[in-house]
Amino acid sequence: MSETIQIKRVPVGVSARHIHLTQEHVEILFGAGAKLTEFKPLSQPGQFAANEMVAIFGPKGSFPKVRILGPTRKATQLEISRTDAFALGLQPPLRESGNIEGTPGIRIVGSAGEVTVDKGVIVAARHIHFNTSDAARWGIADKQLLKVRVGGDRGVVFEQVLARVSDQFALDMHIDTDEGNAANVCTGDFGEIVE
Amino acid sequence: MSETIQIKRVPVGVSARHIHLTQEHVEILFGAGAKLTEFKPLSQPGQFAANEMVAIFGPKGSFPKVRILGPTRKATQLEISRTDAFALGLQPPLRESGNIEGTPGIRIVGSAGEVTVDKGVIVAARHIHFNTSDAARWGIADKQLLKVRVGGDRGVVFEQVLARVSDQFALDMHIDTDEGNAANVCTGDFGEIVE
Repeated sequence: MSETIQIKRVPVGVSARHIHLTQEHVEILFGAGAKLTEFKPLSQPGQFAANEMVAIFGPKGSFPKVRILGPTRKATQLEISRTDAFALGLQPPLRESGNIEGTPGIRIVGSAGEVTVDKGVIVAARHIHFNTSDAARWGIADKQLLKVRVGGDRGVVFEQVLARVSDQFALDMHIDTDEGNAANVCTGDFGEIVE
Repeated sequence: MSETIQIKRVPVGVSARHIHLTQEHVEILFGAGAKLTEFKPLSQPGQFAANEMVAIFGPKGSFPKVRILGPTRKATQLEISRTDAFALGLQPPLRESGNIEGTPGIRIVGSAGEVTVDKGVIVAARHIHFNTSDAARWGIADKQLLKVRVGGDRGVVFEQVLARVSDQFALDMHIDTDEGNAANVCTGDFGEIVE
């Protein structure tokens, strides 16, 4: 009897700092009736990088051009690296997207106005989007924590990689710029689920 | 018969961007006869962070205050993270300290003058300094590549961690700020050699 070794190969996407906005905040920042417009599509179906950008201001530093990702969401959320957090003077927790209770707020400035939110800044927990079919084939459950090897001359095994399973998802692993730089990987490289 | 499991625990030091200078460059930057003065000692015997700092200028960006580490060396060498490299507009290779052939140069400005070197910018390969006694006890050879687990909620196994063994060294693992941020570890935390 022989066992087939299954290589679980996953494309890697390195996320630079970005922000998700509510429609209400889009209109405060860009004017009444304003809508996000698509700059380019992202790996997840229906998601896009918008043409619109905002400036963000923390207690210690700022970033003049932060990309907005669309479509709009139920809550405004800024996702930054720990390197960015030091530059802004914030100490955001490591969180799954959408879980923003108790996180720091931030001042956001658009071309037509500004808004200061009292929460919403996170360092995003690394995760893999699995389509339901990928997850079934590989025996992976939603919320499972995985280990994923990436990188060449700076190889890293990322632990605590959160599996997120949905029939709306396309297979993709999301890490931030600190994680990408630590492993010398870029968007378009591949990782392998090792456990 | 039983085998003792040996836990190989190593203190972690997260290195921010820094520069090593030749005595000749110290005098160009800070004046004839100038010497580096000690701000605080580092983990390796005889090494120190200097009070003196320089500004560095890349093709795209600059850093106004880069710490000099002493004592002076035979070659000037700037060690930066990949995040820093993007900000400066440079593409330095991943290198062991001292191996600077074919690396990018950089403009360095001090309080009394400036110098532009034609090589010396590296992203330092992660490594562990072992005292000869630590290496002997754990069966580790100079130049061996190790795997080291660090971090809590953002656990990472760093592969290709270079062992450097000398009776002049104190046990310490050196990673850069991208690697520290990717694993949520700070100087004073510990890693464990797992392979």
